[in-house]
Amino acid sequence: MKQRSPRSGVTRRAVLSTAASLPLLSLPQIRTAGWAQAGDPLPSWNDGAAKQTIIGFVQGAVDGSSRSFVPPEARIATFDQDGTLWVEHPMYTQVTYCLERVPAVIAQKPELKDAEPFKTVLSGNREAIAKLPMKDLEEILAATLTGMTLDAFEAQVGAWMRGARHPRWGRPYTELAYQPMQEVLRYLRANDFKTYIVTGGGQDFVRVYAQQVYGIPPEQVVGTAGGVAYSYDKEGRPILTKEPKLLLNDNNAGKPEGIHLMIGRRPFAAFGNSTGDRQMLEYTWAGDGPRLAMLLLHDDAQREYAYGPAQGLPDSKVGTFTQALYDEAKNKGWTVISMKGDWNRIFAFEATGSRALQ
Amino acid sequence: MKQRSPRSGVTRRAVLSTAASLPLLSLPQIRTAGWAQAGDPLPSWNDGAAKQTIIGFVQGAVDGSSRSFVPPEARIATFDQDGTLWVEHPMYTQVTYCLERVPAVIAQKPELKDAEPFKTVLSGNREAIAKLPMKDLEEILAATLTGMTLDAFEAQVGAWMRGARHPRWGRPYTELAYQPMQEVLRYLRANDFKTYIVTGGGQDFVRVYAQQVYGIPPEQVVGTAGGVAYSYDKEGRPILTKEPKLLLNDNNAGKPEGIHLMIGRRPFAAFGNSTGDRQMLEYTWAGDGPRLAMLLLHDDAQREYAYGPAQGLPDSKVGTFTQALYDEAKNKGWTVISMKGDWNRIFAFEATGSRALQ
Repeated sequence: MKQRSPRSGVTRRAVLSTAASLPLLSLPQIRTAGWAQAGDPLPSWNDGAAKQTIIGFVQGAVDGSSRSFVPPEARIATFDQDGTLWVEHPMYTQVTYCLERVPAVIAQKPELKDAEPFKTVLSGNREAIAKLPMKDLEEILAATLTGMTLDAFEAQVGAWMRGARHPRWGRPYTELAYQPMQEVLRYLRANDFKTYIVTGGGQDFVRVYAQQVYGIPPEQVVGTAGGVAYSYDKEGRPILTKEPKLLLNDNNAGKPEGIHLMIGRRPFAAFGNSTGDRQMLEYTWAGDGPRLAMLLLHDDAQREYAYGPAQGLPDSKVGTFTQALYDEAKNKGWTVISMKGDWNRIFAFEATGSRALQ
Repeated sequence: MKQRSPRSGVTRRAVLSTAASLPLLSLPQIRTAGWAQAGDPLPSWNDGAAKQTIIGFVQGAVDGSSRSFVPPEARIATFDQDGTLWVEHPMYTQVTYCLERVPAVIAQKPELKDAEPFKTVLSGNREAIAKLPMKDLEEILAATLTGMTLDAFEAQVGAWMRGARHPRWGRPYTELAYQPMQEVLRYLRANDFKTYIVTGGGQDFVRVYAQQVYGIPPEQVVGTAGGVAYSYDKEGRPILTKEPKLLLNDNNAGKPEGIHLMIGRRPFAAFGNSTGDRQMLEYTWAGDGPRLAMLLLHDDAQREYAYGPAQGLPDSKVGTFTQALYDEAKNKGWTVISMKGDWNRIFAFEATGSRALQ
């Protein structure tokens, strides 16, 4: 979190300025007092720098007497989805959807059955599927995400979401949202922040379940967006049809560009977990006044997965938490959340973690 | 306003169904009772079908026991801007801005001084300017609306808005918002509707003043949108630069397409005044349940302007209220608002109209 005086450009921590305004109380006492009144807003978070940073930021943002105060209408918080709000391994959920949707597409267009890349997908050969080049993957995405009416698409995704199960946990993908991040979403909203998803995933795809899973309405989902075409059905009723025309590639620089297009103002808080989120975090952090920039590090192979700097992966892997990003975060003062150290519970379906009581 | 049973497809007026649930009270008594408690929400509207339709729609939407009930999260209302929320004659405000901005552009790029269409604009010859073909106009728009940072653009528009005056009233354009529509915006918001501008004008342009003028935040302004490019300034700070790249032409079919892109759900109420709004009204009206579709007819040459069907203008004029649109509205049951007959006051700076008391 950053506390910057608009004039001097000095960066300070709001958590410290909050403490300074109450010189007789130590920081832990402030927090304890707050929780005693309202309950701990982040019970799945272990006590530590990450939790303190979030709470300090929010307490400063809502305190009208603080230099960290943020007017309610400016309280915008943006969250990457895959790997930040829910599990992204072993494969992005949307890519799994597209691959599993291929048989239904072939049923409509049998002539594709023996054409690549559909033939490979139908073969079920996981190794071969994993090796499909980007061009082939894009063809599969176009065939499964476009060409139908919006109503049909939403019904298809909704039905799949109800039936599909994650290979590791055997549960619906919608249950694999991270409980600690759900608490952050609710805590921010309880303090008049508008919470947005800003995802490299498909905007229309995520909108199908974002309200149910995250309490985030369609108009607060920003994602990679294709065009829709307005026309009329046989009865003359208006319909929207999803087109294979890319309007916004909501990754990397596309994230602040998409935030401008869809929201029109700079967030005060941003959460991500990969190089695809770097520019969103930079853009958020560069604004005047207090800002929150947080990166989730997947370092818990036992309870979830460990990848990125936790595993010493090379920088070249696209869309992961590289060592360079880790270093930039540390240099700039962004907060790195350790899944292993900061979270006592990962999923809502788990029993409340015993670590919280230690 | 439309009341449609989800099963039967029968279209009925919610105002009638509301009355039917209270058989002992006549409709005027219901309204009077409501106003006595809360005051008339639409004092600049004369009593009549348009006002009754709006109030009946809102009363039905918030009444949990009514078949017209709309869940709060689905309460989306969209408004065209030019000619619907404020004056669009003799020229769209944004086009006036672009023309008046040309000298500043020339000061930066003197080599354009003798090049068309800039030479014609600098000449001040109004007839010649009015005759500029669309291609030339687009060149002027690109030169004055793109190529600068977003921060610079917002400062330029804000400064112009403070200084510019409408040729007829000699007042800032921001004072030429229609008072009756301001009342509708506030009335809808007081009943938990999210109010959106959906304009053919520039999204970034309208966002500069929408909060101040209409109480509508940037994220609820949908408009014709160009791309922005993310980069860094000399100090390494992130900047967004406006690019001459069209992402969304928010007119005609582009309005429902833009509504999907930016909002992601169908409005329950839509207000427009021209053929550019036709598809937005159709899309809104075609949804299940109660819907409000309203068109403002400019038929008051004395207090504002008279154009469109009021003047028997031919169908060919783009972006106006054509006779064909008027006929479609009447056939479908949309409500046509007569500026002359339905509004007792047009601008906030006018004294309260005496017609209201008749």
